[in-house]
Amino acid sequence: MTGSDDLIRQARNVTEGGLPKSPRKATAVIACIDSRVEPARVLGGEAGDYHIIRNAGGLVTDDSLRSLMVSQFHGTTAVVVMMHTDCGAMTYPADAERARLEGKIGKRISFNMHPFDDLETELRRGVRLLREVPLLPNQDRIRGVIYDVDTARVLTVVE
Amino acid sequence: MTGSDDLIRQARNVTEGGLPKSPRKATAVIACIDSRVEPARVLGGEAGDYHIIRNAGGLVTDDSLRSLMVSQFHGTTAVVVMMHTDCGAMTYPADAERARLEGKIGKRISFNMHPFDDLETELRRGVRLLREVPLLPNQDRIRGVIYDVDTARVLTVVE
Repeated sequence: MTGSDDLIRQARNVTEGGLPKSPRKATAVIACIDSRVEPARVLGGEAGDYHIIRNAGGLVTDDSLRSLMVSQFHGTTAVVVMMHTDCGAMTYPADAERARLEGKIGKRISFNMHPFDDLETELRRGVRLLREVPLLPNQDRIRGVIYDVDTARVLTVVE
Repeated sequence: MTGSDDLIRQARNVTEGGLPKSPRKATAVIACIDSRVEPARVLGGEAGDYHIIRNAGGLVTDDSLRSLMVSQFHGTTAVVVMMHTDCGAMTYPADAERARLEGKIGKRISFNMHPFDDLETELRRGVRLLREVPLLPNQDRIRGVIYDVDTARVLTVVE
């Protein structure tokens, strides 16, 4: 457990306590897990400004939708879906991995592995889904962006 | 779209481009969406150190497991599950909201709303699940922590 021990030992008083419970910009961001992406900074903010939802790809999934429902219950009214260039979720061989694992464990994996082929197509699908599903109280301010991890700029904005 | 317009306008060159694709600490963190939690800083790190998965609660769900599979495929070998005090996901009335929404849309919501009552019980459940499900290549270095948003300290460590 060496690596993890080190991590926990480092977990000292490096963050700010007592921040406000509601995010200052009243906005939730769905972003990828990638270590090159800092969603709050990309949007010109900092800790305390956003609810940040992150999954492989920055996808609109059942679980990110659940998180958005919780977020809007606690006061957010806008959503930004943030995908990025050179995304590792696109190069993950989801179908092959599913088959391999199902062979190994001898039963079906029931969850959606969410493979996707094109950033902008997937981003538009996610934004459209968030606007159309009747689960969110606030559906007017939903946008998508593609962030370029090489230049650190936003390339594409889906209105 | 005013709020969201402002956000995108602010999205200038505020982040660092050209970071390495693999997280330096080879670790994935599952954390909550809460704006008071900065997972990398809590663990003594910064952008580029971790894959960060975030959902309401910091829960081990189908989708966070999918994200971990992608993360480990791209080189991480350790996992930290990070929950926190005063969590808004615990006070979200998941069952009541499900019933209300099902009444409104006239059909069943199929996804798991993941209500939970106790931080440490849920944290131990998540850590145990990650160690037991035969889906992750690296299951030896998995830990849980509870972060105190008032004092900015880690309170509990689940080995």
